[in-house]
Amino acid sequence: MIRFESDYLEGAHPRVLEKLTQTNFEQTPGYGVDTHCERARELIKKACEAPDASVHFLVGGTQTNTTVIASLLKPYEGVLAPVSGHINVHETGSVEATGHKVLGLESDDGKITAKQIDDAYTAHINDSTHEHMVKPALVYISQPTENGTLYTKSELEAIRCVCDKNSLLLFVDGARCGYGLKSENNDVFLPDLARLCDVFYIGGTKVGALFGEAIVFKNEELARDFRYMIKRHGGMLAKGRLLGVQFEALFEDGLYFEISEYAMKLALKIKKTLCELNIPTLFDSPSNQQFPILPNDIYKKLSEKYSFSFWCAPDSEHTAVRICTSWATTEENVDMLIADLKREIAK
Amino acid sequence: MIRFESDYLEGAHPRVLEKLTQTNFEQTPGYGVDTHCERARELIKKACEAPDASVHFLVGGTQTNTTVIASLLKPYEGVLAPVSGHINVHETGSVEATGHKVLGLESDDGKITAKQIDDAYTAHINDSTHEHMVKPALVYISQPTENGTLYTKSELEAIRCVCDKNSLLLFVDGARCGYGLKSENNDVFLPDLARLCDVFYIGGTKVGALFGEAIVFKNEELARDFRYMIKRHGGMLAKGRLLGVQFEALFEDGLYFEISEYAMKLALKIKKTLCELNIPTLFDSPSNQQFPILPNDIYKKLSEKYSFSFWCAPDSEHTAVRICTSWATTEENVDMLIADLKREIAK
Amino acid sequence: MIRFESDYLEGAHPRVLEKLTQTNFEQTPGYGVDTHCERARELIKKACEAPDASVHFLVGGTQTNTTVIASLLKPYEGVLAPVSGHINVHETGSVEATGHKVLGLESDDGKITAKQIDDAYTAHINDSTHEHMVKPALVYISQPTENGTLYTKSELEAIRCVCDKNSLLLFVDGARCGYGLKSENNDVFLPDLARLCDVFYIGGTKVGALFGEAIVFKNEELARDFRYMIKRHGGMLAKGRLLGVQFEALFEDGLYFEISEYAMKLALKIKKTLCELNIPTLFDSPSNQQFPILPNDIYKKLSEKYSFSFWCAPDSEHTAVRICTSWATTEENVDMLIADLKREIAK
Amino acid sequence: MIRFESDYLEGAHPRVLEKLTQTNFEQTPGYGVDTHCERARELIKKACEAPDASVHFLVGGTQTNTTVIASLLKPYEGVLAPVSGHINVHETGSVEATGHKVLGLESDDGKITAKQIDDAYTAHINDSTHEHMVKPALVYISQPTENGTLYTKSELEAIRCVCDKNSLLLFVDGARCGYGLKSENNDVFLPDLARLCDVFYIGGTKVGALFGEAIVFKNEELARDFRYMIKRHGGMLAKGRLLGVQFEALFEDGLYFEISEYAMKLALKIKKTLCELNIPTLFDSPSNQQFPILPNDIYKKLSEKYSFSFWCAPDSEHTAVRICTSWATTEENVDMLIADLKREIAK
Repeated sequence: MIRFESDYLEGAHPRVLEKLTQTNFEQTPGYGVDTHCERARELIKKACEAPDASVHFLVGGTQTNTTVIASLLKPYEGVLAPVSGHINVHETGSVEATGHKVLGLESDDGKITAKQIDDAYTAHINDSTHEHMVKPALVYISQPTENGTLYTKSELEAIRCVCDKNSLLLFVDGARCGYGLKSENNDVFLPDLARLCDVFYIGGTKVGALFGEAIVFKNEELARDFRYMIKRHGGMLAKGRLLGVQFEALFEDGLYFEISEYAMKLALKIKKTLCELNIPTLFDSPSNQQFPILPNDIYKKLSEKYSFSFWCAPDSEHTAVRICTSWATTEENVDMLIADLKREIAK
Repeated sequence: MIRFESDYLEGAHPRVLEKLTQTNFEQTPGYGVDTHCERARELIKKACEAPDASVHFLVGGTQTNTTVIASLLKPYEGVLAPVSGHINVHETGSVEATGHKVLGLESDDGKITAKQIDDAYTAHINDSTHEHMVKPALVYISQPTENGTLYTKSELEAIRCVCDKNSLLLFVDGARCGYGLKSENNDVFLPDLARLCDVFYIGGTKVGALFGEAIVFKNEELARDFRYMIKRHGGMLAKGRLLGVQFEALFEDGLYFEISEYAMKLALKIKKTLCELNIPTLFDSPSNQQFPILPNDIYKKLSEKYSFSFWCAPDSEHTAVRICTSWATTEENVDMLIADLKREIAK
Repeated sequence: MIRFESDYLEGAHPRVLEKLTQTNFEQTPGYGVDTHCERARELIKKACEAPDASVHFLVGGTQTNTTVIASLLKPYEGVLAPVSGHINVHETGSVEATGHKVLGLESDDGKITAKQIDDAYTAHINDSTHEHMVKPALVYISQPTENGTLYTKSELEAIRCVCDKNSLLLFVDGARCGYGLKSENNDVFLPDLARLCDVFYIGGTKVGALFGEAIVFKNEELARDFRYMIKRHGGMLAKGRLLGVQFEALFEDGLYFEISEYAMKLALKIKKTLCELNIPTLFDSPSNQQFPILPNDIYKKLSEKYSFSFWCAPDSEHTAVRICTSWATTEENVDMLIADLKREIAK
Repeated sequence: MIRFESDYLEGAHPRVLEKLTQTNFEQTPGYGVDTHCERARELIKKACEAPDASVHFLVGGTQTNTTVIASLLKPYEGVLAPVSGHINVHETGSVEATGHKVLGLESDDGKITAKQIDDAYTAHINDSTHEHMVKPALVYISQPTENGTLYTKSELEAIRCVCDKNSLLLFVDGARCGYGLKSENNDVFLPDLARLCDVFYIGGTKVGALFGEAIVFKNEELARDFRYMIKRHGGMLAKGRLLGVQFEALFEDGLYFEISEYAMKLALKIKKTLCELNIPTLFDSPSNQQFPILPNDIYKKLSEKYSFSFWCAPDSEHTAVRICTSWATTEENVDMLIADLKREIAK
């Protein structure tokens, strides 16, 4: 079985694993205050052109989303997010587990607009019974989104603008950050995210690391006492240096960008094939997740050899699936998939 | 200013107040284990024809919704509710404050269907990633709904049926229960609610009491250790007998039904007038809340003399409002409102 | 059975009930924004000589403690409190239900000292692993304490001082506030509490009201968005004016102080009797709760006629009980109890 | 600097790292349902002689404690634990963050007795106001304890017995499980833990793994829907197979026991030296943590070359520290420490 179902099918990039092995017998203090974490923090601040940022490392995405959100909100405050946002659908209510409501905004492609955010906040504040409702206080979006789509810089700037106007915080989930950065027409880079967000994170789990997400708070004040929050949420890794070492490997000589670019090259190959073959997609995704809508017989045939993520059944004749590339995808497998797709469609 | 904005504008029905005064100097133990509470429990079980029920009294509706829901769910479980449900909109995230997600189902008129519930549960369980999502475990509906609409007995039976099929609990918010019971074509009575629900409550706050809601659990097992939960949620009234005394007054000789019927007579008068005057309404409500859509100039004119609840602005020319009757509404005021409406429309 | 077990055995003082009756048919908006609540707020601010205070009304003590604490703490912060504090023992973990740990400090008589608070905070901050521990952020004490004891003004000033030094908030539970104010040697008055605390409350439930606690925040900033918190915790009384009306009755002409003084006169009578009869007490309480340690046979004999709260069994021969007086206690009953005590001891 | 401050100073045992490297390019589904996790589960069930157990893997100890406890308790229930228990002191209130109170029982050496547990439960249930207090429902203890001490089999059996009597669950934190198993006089082995506990865990983080704890529930029923809980608490590792692979390495040919035995040999060397030199210890620890009380000058001198964990200052002349051995400690370093200790004491 050749697997395309997700971008976390393998372990870590060999250079990440190698660095873990090299440093294995170093003795370091626990909990992320070692020199590897320190150096990784500096590398990330540099990549973000954000010398005042406060960088923290956590193991996984749900943990990151929940701990960040819970650290920034007052109890009666809630999160504006697209209905398709990961926190609203696929985290088993982790945000609600901390007492906060996710206030879903409609979205066709995984993105929301500055206007939607402004309208939601304005409607709340203008309602005479607003004290009886959860107060919107933070905007959660993903870049790329769960549907592979990307915000443009001007869209993000407009969102920042309504956040400023309404005293809302902006948090960007960058679990697949790398693949967005290296998407063909992307114009949002790490320094843009650092400038426009109050907090965002750079995903390692899906981009070369065994695990790990690097959270970038705009400044120390926003991250105040965040380490208490990490511990309280069970996210304080005893051997914290494992996170530092991995992000060092990813950022000390551009590995993060290099492998993201590689994965995007393969994703684009698939995207172009789908286009050529007139296979429709659920979303027009410019990043490493592609969502073709396949005739059922072709889906069935391909499934004998490949695994995809089932996404939905748009009608009784078709199945929409997710196909992911990653740093670990081989070009050979992509080419085989393309050839098989072409052959099946041609039948 | 003559107020029609809600059904909790005045204190208590005089017979309720009188009983509070008569019993004022009795010495009773606290926390709802006194003889008044005991008697009120018996009266309610009798009215519900539910000798095995477990009856508990709380002060208000939000407290009741939250305490009941939190007592019945495991941490990862959520509540299926209409998007317009009180718990989803107007309780400042009280349910989320206990860690549970409200899973909103679309609704035009405040009601949801058995099919919607079944589809939501089935979609969850059939999803291969269901452990990554909140598990639906309880259905919350209101009778009458927040929009004044009512479930029929057959609708409720269908909902009970899908709940049984899918091991879902059914909880009915009866904050305005009395007004539903006495609605013209209603066919759902207290014994039906007691038979069809796992738990429901009979609202006192809006139907004659100073405050108070009587929760009826189907049996003692469902209510196990519920008093711990009441205390934990800050709902254990020190002078618990105040709740018992009020529900005694409401249920010892049918006062609850009598005053509900009275309020419904007045509501129907208003409803018929709206119909005669061809004033459209937001919802076709057969209960004590009416939602006329008024031309702005008439709304403005009437607002000089009457207060309504602003509901929404369907377009730039109209304003939709809520008009409530209650046990305390005077027929004189209703007649005056009707006359003024007629005069304004006729202009 | 003549009951001395608590100070919430009866309803309300007749003048409170009378005012509820007089205002019963007024139509007011809900949720505590009516003119009665407004006036009661002004009366309380005046009594506290605290024009900048922000006053809110809730129904009961546990609700008040929890809502106030949850509104003031960040998620990882905890409450320093005497181990015997009501929140630590008798609120079914309400504070923990909001995610906060109660950090108990040892206490023999219900009080804690400024030094204990300072030591606890200093130990925390000086510990190199403090991020792995709950951060003390608020001090909770009761005046009078759960054991009837009282802080002196200089003790409270010392506590305020360490709070300022360590950026700790000070919250005083005044559920029995009135009885403390009128205790013989008390030197802590409402303006002192308003000046020394960040927030405290004036109990109504145990001092003349049917129910109700008046929370006094030092300023509007500390109470920011507190109404959201009230609603979120199920504490927003629909007919909020019931709280306003009762506190108006208690504070418009000094009723609160008058009835507290009356109860204290009776408590003192009992205290003096215990002293004369050489009956030891658990705590040297100058307020309305007395804790005599009775020989078991006398306890048994008296229990045929009177109800007390069982407190503990110091040894196999004795039983310690709580005897309370209140605004509703009759002098006749107190005299009878005293006579019976004397007779039994004399046997 | 030679570090003895903890048992998580290095990475993983080389055989663990090697297996991670060997399996790095395998494609597996995420979230712990891969073949490595399956095999590791079987190995652990076999080691525990518990074919009906349900085994789950999490990344760290605090996450494990919190997720297990939150999954087993009803909202108003609490945890009986020694005051020195990790959950009560060093997890930043993680358990409270899920709404549950930790009910601390006094302990000198980190252990509690069956009698203490029985007394606490009995006192609760016999109190007429028990509904106003958190209900004890689960016992949390550690083996070895945070102070290095061990329960004997008969002590654990007595605890199991009072748990059965009072319907309490028993949960053993085995973060340092291996070192206890290989302690000289230990008579509690994995099958004993599996038989006596409702749930316990086998720590990997401190015993050879990069990270990871293997939770062993007595049966599937106790672990029902536990994967929902893992996800809700942010503990569902995307590349779950990393946990499976590591526990495979530790349990496929006895590595876990082998390296624990090695660490214990070194710990015993240190313990014997302390004894010979008449250096007192805080606790009589038979496991891999030793707690010598050093004269300040010797502490200062040794600290130039070695790092220990500061534990407390018993008086102004002495400092108590923690010295740990682990699978990664070298005999050379231990011998050097022993020689330096001897020399310093001899001065």
